Amino acid sequence: MPALGSSGSAAPRDVVVLGGGIVGTACAWRLAERGARVVLVDPDPGGGSSRAAAGMLAPVSELHHGERDLLDVCLLAAAGFARYAAEVSAASGLPTGYRDCGTLVVALDAGDRARLADVRSAQERLGLDVAALTGRQCRALEPMLDPAVSGGTLVAGDHQVDPRRLLAALRTAAARRGVELLSERAEVLVEDGRAVGVRCADGSPRRADVVVVATGAHAGEHAPVRPVKGQVARLRMPAGGHLLQRTVRGVVRDRDVYLVPRADGELVVGATTEERGFDATVTAGAVHDLLRDAQALVPGTAELELVEVLARTRPGSPDNLPLVGPGRVPGLLLAVGHHRNGVLLSGVTGDAVAALAFGEDVVPEVAACDPVRFGSRTATREEVLVR
Amino acid sequence: MPALGSSGSAAPRDVVVLGGGIVGTACAWRLAERGARVVLVDPDPGGGSSRAAAGMLAPVSELHHGERDLLDVCLLAAAGFARYAAEVSAASGLPTGYRDCGTLVVALDAGDRARLADVRSAQERLGLDVAALTGRQCRALEPMLDPAVSGGTLVAGDHQVDPRRLLAALRTAAARRGVELLSERAEVLVEDGRAVGVRCADGSPRRADVVVVATGAHAGEHAPVRPVKGQVARLRMPAGGHLLQRTVRGVVRDRDVYLVPRADGELVVGATTEERGFDATVTAGAVHDLLRDAQALVPGTAELELVEVLARTRPGSPDNLPLVGPGRVPGLLLAVGHHRNGVLLSGVTGDAVAALAFGEDVVPEVAACDPVRFGSRTATREEVLVR
Repeated sequence: MPALGSSGSAAPRDVVVLGGGIVGTACAWRLAERGARVVLVDPDPGGGSSRAAAGMLAPVSELHHGERDLLDVCLLAAAGFARYAAEVSAASGLPTGYRDCGTLVVALDAGDRARLADVRSAQERLGLDVAALTGRQCRALEPMLDPAVSGGTLVAGDHQVDPRRLLAALRTAAARRGVELLSERAEVLVEDGRAVGVRCADGSPRRADVVVVATGAHAGEHAPVRPVKGQVARLRMPAGGHLLQRTVRGVVRDRDVYLVPRADGELVVGATTEERGFDATVTAGAVHDLLRDAQALVPGTAELELVEVLARTRPGSPDNLPLVGPGRVPGLLLAVGHHRNGVLLSGVTGDAVAALAFGEDVVPEVAACDPVRFGSRTATREEVLVR
Repeated sequence: MPALGSSGSAAPRDVVVLGGGIVGTACAWRLAERGARVVLVDPDPGGGSSRAAAGMLAPVSELHHGERDLLDVCLLAAAGFARYAAEVSAASGLPTGYRDCGTLVVALDAGDRARLADVRSAQERLGLDVAALTGRQCRALEPMLDPAVSGGTLVAGDHQVDPRRLLAALRTAAARRGVELLSERAEVLVEDGRAVGVRCADGSPRRADVVVVATGAHAGEHAPVRPVKGQVARLRMPAGGHLLQRTVRGVVRDRDVYLVPRADGELVVGATTEERGFDATVTAGAVHDLLRDAQALVPGTAELELVEVLARTRPGSPDNLPLVGPGRVPGLLLAVGHHRNGVLLSGVTGDAVAALAFGEDVVPEVAACDPVRFGSRTATREEVLVR
């Protein structure tokens, strides 16, 4: 029997985390930090949507009308990201590529400008830190912008991190805390209406007190998530000659495009948003459109090396808010459905999952992500650890 | 001392061929067929321009004014290609991907049509097999063409081969004839003003009676060749749903683009022509332009999977004609400078190099490729085997 925690709840001795992306690895690390014996199971750790993510930490520039709960949890995560990244680095000895460089959102024509102004009004009403810029002011900040850029919004607080570095650092931090990485396919093992571990593809079980499902878009069996295809391109800026100082976003022909320049010279251009089911096919049309739109904002991107193109599926949820909390049976915790914000929300999700596994409360911003809002849950939070 | 051949010339016992692309491997195979002991030396066999080549066998659609010698040798090669491909297949037991599918050259606007008509007049004056088509006739042949295609030229005799398959088959044919493949960097070894073999990167020599230089654009030490960068994209057509029946070429905004559909579903889109020295960097702008121009001719290409993009350097020569014949010192034969026609000319080059190594004459079309036209040669053809 698990020991009782200091809050009066049971403390899990053994935890299996399914899914070795950024969210799952952050959960595994935080659980292990608190003393749980953690096995992280993934047949291709980091090979899913974490591999394609650009790493924008952009609650303000990604604001969509009517998604107040999403904004709140994203703002919480953004406010704590520098500390989270520093903790991961300290625990792993590895860099995360975190850059507090801000984001510039630009408009080309009058229609784009009107759209930007509309979003900016909403941002200002919410008290967010945004500043209207003329085209000239935009080019003063980023001289490589196309002369056609006619206005923009500076979002000083929307930063970036390198998801591949962050994941490598999280994995090392987790390993240092004793997390065992199991590169296998596995599914949740339910006995007597309770999750008791996972069954690996070879049939062998791994028993646990708590199972955390962090398999992103592949968690359809456990949660109302769906795959949202995204295609991205990675370019390389010449050594020493950084084309951009900060993340640049824009709307080109009514399609969003972003350019995320890393300190190491990588420039990520993304991303398509396609409802196509599970499909990791890179298409000629998508790559063409990404490169065209990037050139429309920053013509100099045409001269850059094209290093990589890839497609992955984001884990979409019905309300774009993740599902973090108890699953449909006792012993099951969900950490899925992070859609466009998995990297940003990985820290708060890891904290929340660890807290929930130890029977503690979570902050209100994360409580809003409780899967109970979809009404299909049979287990209460308290039942997670009850057997 | 080598034995005297039937023509009265010396027959080489040992030959080293430098360069394991399609041209070098064809030379090695033909030399071995005639009884020479051949070593084929290349640190990355097939990794050069042969890897990027689209495999168009297109002397007629590639016609440029004033290049009569090039046209003649290319027509000779095209006329014999089906037999050459069959021989390679028979000798290797492998397919070459040869397809006698013809080529359709299309025009979008009036300017393109005028340019096509101008080229067609030249083609007709030379007695080449070309037929003028209306836009409707073009679409009847290739229904996936853009509705804007307003006319074209059908070149019934310009076919295609798959260079990667051809090279694999050539390599197997060569191996079956005893050709030894040495994956090392090496340079020509000259003693007393005569090529006597090669020296490998580790310093060890490989002595030979004749050295064939077939290192493409990397033969600058031996011949006036220069690198001409080309970037290509490889798409994949869905199984069973072939988008195009034949090679389609066109001019889009005054830039040539071609689409080469293979029987196995691959669709090669090429190619840039860039004078940038040795540079295998794939650039965002080039890929964008290729995909855009392909879409302009065949909009359905946007839906295809983008499988590969790569850049290589064609071996350009001052007059676009290859350099096939004796080099600057006795014992040296050149087979370089094939520029856009290395795959097409590989068969006749292999035949010619084998003939020259055995002291025989070559056909007039290949004799026109003698490097002596650049005036820097010190060895006569007869001196190749003299020591």
